[in-house]
Amino acid sequence: MDKQQAQQLQIAALPPEIESEHFFEGVEKLLEVWFDERATGDLRNITRNQWENLLRHVKCEIISFTQNEHIDAFLLSESSMFVSRRRWILKTCGTTTPLKCLEQLLKLAQVEGYTVITDIFYSRKNFTRPEVQNSPHKGFYEEVTYLDSIFPEGRSYCLGSINQECWYLYTFSQPEKEGEEEEEDEVKPNQKLQQLQLQQPADFGDPDQTIEILMQQLDNDVMALFTKDKFATGQEVTQSSGIDLLLPQMHIDDFLFDPCGYSMNGINDKGEYMTIHITPEEKFSYVSFESNVALDNYTRLISQVIKTFKPGKFIVTIFANKSSLAYETMKELEIEYSTLSNWQRTDMQCCNFPSYNLLFAQYSRGKSS
Amino acid sequence: MDKQQAQQLQIAALPPEIESEHFFEGVEKLLEVWFDERATGDLRNITRNQWENLLRHVKCEIISFTQNEHIDAFLLSESSMFVSRRRWILKTCGTTTPLKCLEQLLKLAQVEGYTVITDIFYSRKNFTRPEVQNSPHKGFYEEVTYLDSIFPEGRSYCLGSINQECWYLYTFSQPEKEGEEEEEDEVKPNQKLQQLQLQQPADFGDPDQTIEILMQQLDNDVMALFTKDKFATGQEVTQSSGIDLLLPQMHIDDFLFDPCGYSMNGINDKGEYMTIHITPEEKFSYVSFESNVALDNYTRLISQVIKTFKPGKFIVTIFANKSSLAYETMKELEIEYSTLSNWQRTDMQCCNFPSYNLLFAQYSRGKSS
Repeated sequence: MDKQQAQQLQIAALPPEIESEHFFEGVEKLLEVWFDERATGDLRNITRNQWENLLRHVKCEIISFTQNEHIDAFLLSESSMFVSRRRWILKTCGTTTPLKCLEQLLKLAQVEGYTVITDIFYSRKNFTRPEVQNSPHKGFYEEVTYLDSIFPEGRSYCLGSINQECWYLYTFSQPEKEGEEEEEDEVKPNQKLQQLQLQQPADFGDPDQTIEILMQQLDNDVMALFTKDKFATGQEVTQSSGIDLLLPQMHIDDFLFDPCGYSMNGINDKGEYMTIHITPEEKFSYVSFESNVALDNYTRLISQVIKTFKPGKFIVTIFANKSSLAYETMKELEIEYSTLSNWQRTDMQCCNFPSYNLLFAQYSRGKSS
Repeated sequence: MDKQQAQQLQIAALPPEIESEHFFEGVEKLLEVWFDERATGDLRNITRNQWENLLRHVKCEIISFTQNEHIDAFLLSESSMFVSRRRWILKTCGTTTPLKCLEQLLKLAQVEGYTVITDIFYSRKNFTRPEVQNSPHKGFYEEVTYLDSIFPEGRSYCLGSINQECWYLYTFSQPEKEGEEEEEDEVKPNQKLQQLQLQQPADFGDPDQTIEILMQQLDNDVMALFTKDKFATGQEVTQSSGIDLLLPQMHIDDFLFDPCGYSMNGINDKGEYMTIHITPEEKFSYVSFESNVALDNYTRLISQVIKTFKPGKFIVTIFANKSSLAYETMKELEIEYSTLSNWQRTDMQCCNFPSYNLLFAQYSRGKSS
């Protein structure tokens, strides 16, 4: 399928039971899988045909593709897929079923010599309309049960208020192996992280961080840009909206859906990515921004994203491993976030996982704005 | 009911469906309610008879009572109740139903002039056997629904891993009033906390902190102390176990159940409290420690509690408001905790609420111990 064929897909993908009342679930399911550093394969050897077969389990299709020496970036009928040597990211919205392709992914990775998953992250915001989702995505409990059948040691979290708005995370990290532990005589017992760093230097030596900004109740005038009424191509909207200025070094692949909706992938020479997906309809407007760009402070970027899209409320999540620039500054960010003017922070949580720290914050527009 | 009558109660309270397989749910439901500082009443004017009536809704009884000029401390057939001028704490284990007495509490408080609840906290660890609980405690969702019917703006959280071990919290804090906000012209917009401090100096001027240590898989030799086989009175066990050394300035009211089980309340001249409840049976051993004692660093206290009871795993929660000594040192604690030898930290989360910070950490015994 090419970009032209894809133009009607976003609407066609709506489940029949809600065709009468137009609705699209912009909230994405985000799946990120890291394979063992010590294997020598390359996920980018997996062919387009193989990815297309895999994505049939998800119920979405490839509509565009860009790449550089570090990363392959696929624009999908419902959001995006990024493939690096040993990292795979799938982000899909609507009523797609990304967990259903995990077994197929493991098979394809095995052919490339990847038999060990070192880290997996599955996350999403609470759905606006959970009742229209398909199994195994009908609820977080069902998703966890499905993931637990593959990763028996996975842990699941709910950040934010369970009875209001929240963000779910399932994560599994490969523990150190018993045999290796015995070889590390000089390591003090129970300093688990230190052991892991010694055993898997490349794993923890690679700085890694991901920021997501999930926005709702967006400004009508801004959202009106992301329609075929206003523009003919994704490229025009990218420039008119200021998306091209957010991270200027990115090579952008964008797509404007008919009659409305927008997706973009950006990749730069360092192998970093960004991706934005927009559901502009007023009743259920939703914009997601995600990037793994390495910055020592995300405050400026967050402010610029917020100014570009003008949401009524938003969630920020930042993952950073111990080697990341972001890791040390997350404490500062806790304070700096709270000074973002005109915003009331409704929630703030941080989690220390074995190899990553996570910051979660939720904001809504203050009374005075 | 006095201490003698109470001796058989812990066993008698077991629901019939599990009498055949002896089980007792040590995990407590903890309810803490703060009333408006500006009212002039005193919850300690509520009579013993009124409290007994209220506790019938919970399905537990008073077995002992101590007091000083600051605080009334009740030892219950299932755990404890503490009453101060405007703060009420109820902690009950087994299959009790503490939420069912909330309406009665509000009525009694109203007679004392308290019409506004400024803060409420309802929390508990996941039950060992949730299926034997009574409504509205059959699950956190049911508890939240019940609380939401009384506090429509309450927020609910799950800390730790939802699919493994976790700790639930429901919290509601009275927002500032519109009228009052207008009077504070010099306050910058959206500096919500600062506004609250200016409006309600006494509320936030009172330092407040609570530490809980919830322990499981406890050492058999230590648990054997808390039985009638070994000792005749609570006082003997309190001394033999070293409980009297944990916070030496506390005036202790203790109780040893027949054939096993232990409860204690401690209060000091500052109005601070501590409370310990022990379910010693090997198959479902559980010990809870709780105190609001003001310390600038809880590491020593945690270590001493852990050495006294020797759990296989434990959860620590620390609440601290902005005026608390603990507040500024929570960041340090994050680091210091991780150096507790022989313990592996399986989870660590912190939450920033409007008027309190919360630290949650979960530990299990390391491989080498």
